[in-house]
Amino acid sequence: MKREKRIGIRDVAQEAEVSPATVSRVLNDHGYLSKETKNKVFAAMKKLEYYPNDLARALYQKRSFTVGLIFPSITNPFHAELIQNIENELSSKGYKVLLCNSLNNSDKEAKYIAMLRKNQVDGIIVGTHNTNVKGYNIPELPVVAVDRSLGKNTITVSCDNYSGGKKAVNLLVESKCQNILCIRGDSKIKLPANARTRAYQEIMAANNLPAKILEVAFVEKYLNKKHLIEEYLGDHEEIDGIFAGDDLLANISIQYLQKSGRLVPQDVKVVGFDGARQTLAFNPYLTTICQPITKIAQVAVGKLINKINGIDEHDDIRIPVKLHKGFTA
Amino acid sequence: MKREKRIGIRDVAQEAEVSPATVSRVLNDHGYLSKETKNKVFAAMKKLEYYPNDLARALYQKRSFTVGLIFPSITNPFHAELIQNIENELSSKGYKVLLCNSLNNSDKEAKYIAMLRKNQVDGIIVGTHNTNVKGYNIPELPVVAVDRSLGKNTITVSCDNYSGGKKAVNLLVESKCQNILCIRGDSKIKLPANARTRAYQEIMAANNLPAKILEVAFVEKYLNKKHLIEEYLGDHEEIDGIFAGDDLLANISIQYLQKSGRLVPQDVKVVGFDGARQTLAFNPYLTTICQPITKIAQVAVGKLINKINGIDEHDDIRIPVKLHKGFTA
Repeated sequence: MKREKRIGIRDVAQEAEVSPATVSRVLNDHGYLSKETKNKVFAAMKKLEYYPNDLARALYQKRSFTVGLIFPSITNPFHAELIQNIENELSSKGYKVLLCNSLNNSDKEAKYIAMLRKNQVDGIIVGTHNTNVKGYNIPELPVVAVDRSLGKNTITVSCDNYSGGKKAVNLLVESKCQNILCIRGDSKIKLPANARTRAYQEIMAANNLPAKILEVAFVEKYLNKKHLIEEYLGDHEEIDGIFAGDDLLANISIQYLQKSGRLVPQDVKVVGFDGARQTLAFNPYLTTICQPITKIAQVAVGKLINKINGIDEHDDIRIPVKLHKGFTA
Repeated sequence: MKREKRIGIRDVAQEAEVSPATVSRVLNDHGYLSKETKNKVFAAMKKLEYYPNDLARALYQKRSFTVGLIFPSITNPFHAELIQNIENELSSKGYKVLLCNSLNNSDKEAKYIAMLRKNQVDGIIVGTHNTNVKGYNIPELPVVAVDRSLGKNTITVSCDNYSGGKKAVNLLVESKCQNILCIRGDSKIKLPANARTRAYQEIMAANNLPAKILEVAFVEKYLNKKHLIEEYLGDHEEIDGIFAGDDLLANISIQYLQKSGRLVPQDVKVVGFDGARQTLAFNPYLTTICQPITKIAQVAVGKLINKINGIDEHDDIRIPVKLHKGFTA
């Protein structure tokens, strides 16, 4: 395609029969201008389909109204819904979104941070699970972490993981499960979600029940996750309750149990975590802890915009969760 | 947060004890410079953590290396996987992604097109299902449509919908289904996916079977989709095969059939469409037509970059599909 010249301020000025400086003043709403002049300029812009250059404006104002999102993946239903809500919220406040999928790769994540800085983003919202990524401690760049702890200079927004863990494990204990497995993420990463395992351990201890924990890292490939869970459940036929780290792990467990002839919930009860709308549309039978995804997005965006506007906060915000009672526990 | 001044070219020049013009020449690799000077500048950039301003570069070069993606939603597993692959592919070619979710809203879509133009994107990849959105016929802006027809000036990339429809319906006919329902999207929108219904109608006619079509628009809310399907299946107990427009519609059908005591696949066989990885991870039992999502993303990005580089094409590209044989048909 032969690319034609983009319509510029000079073309608008010529069409409206005013000077380029006048067009610029109309665009920036700067200085006194008669209604007649403004209307002439607007009419010319409309006629020529002129689009002001927001890059030039961003350079001039030192504000790009662009936010970078770095998430491990958008195919996970929880992240998909979260990113959609964040984008929607930012868009309603006049911000654009540069999307970065780190695909669980620390190098890729570090490159994205550099790319976002070169592109003068006003801030970053990050929800990756990589370890050893430096580069978020940037004094002049506001960062909000979702479901991740980045140190004392940042704000972390997450669901109330501790209370979510309590709700899930209490349900299993009240249903008389004796051997409850907790499938958790990588224990080496400092994540707000670690509080779920803490809740599990406390309830097990309080009820004199044995703690049984299987680690399945979030960044692991699907088939590896499947293999780890099938191997554990194959070796531990005593398991009669499962508190899974997310709904995918819950589903993998349910599929294996059904395949191996154990009935859910009669023989084994299963509770997941996340409860994204898409997951529940496909699997309404799943009992799970629903994260307040819309609220997490709203709070994360609100806190980021506060930071962008110079309001300094170092919070750790936890938003209440709900139990979705399906048929698996 | 008190926002500190960003490190600029002048700071690098001062640190390296050269002129700002020299730093600029190093950054743009322009003109002869001694290795010693280059190294001094690189060392200063590293020490000060200087990030070149890509907005200024984009303005100067009139190339932003940014692509806008406009999709209805990323919570749909097919779109999530498609967008992830497109982002990954663009990122590997040095392009950034501005993400726009039109949320099935024509006004929002039109506003996004304007926003992307103001931000000087090099091109747009669009996969929305809104009707009546003008604004894509932009001579100077390359546009590639995925699963959507935007007129003769654009390239459309989609899976081979006709062959997908044939595979699905032939499977149902060969399994001796006599009353096959085709659940399709909105017939008023001109979409490549309409070829699936054409394949269905041809096979029905060739086998002297009655064509039964239920329209469920993609943009419809989940509960409305559920209501429409439940109402139809409740009124048409003769249905013994379903070719669903996507995997969500297939799942809604399966859930209703199970709830109303009809066995899948014994009483009713169901074939979906899309086969996103996440869908099959959660629902491996589903028989569905798998779209070549990775390939669609690669081709769409390749064609867009060709257009950006001035290669003019008006193709309609169809990529082969595969049948995933689960247990529902």
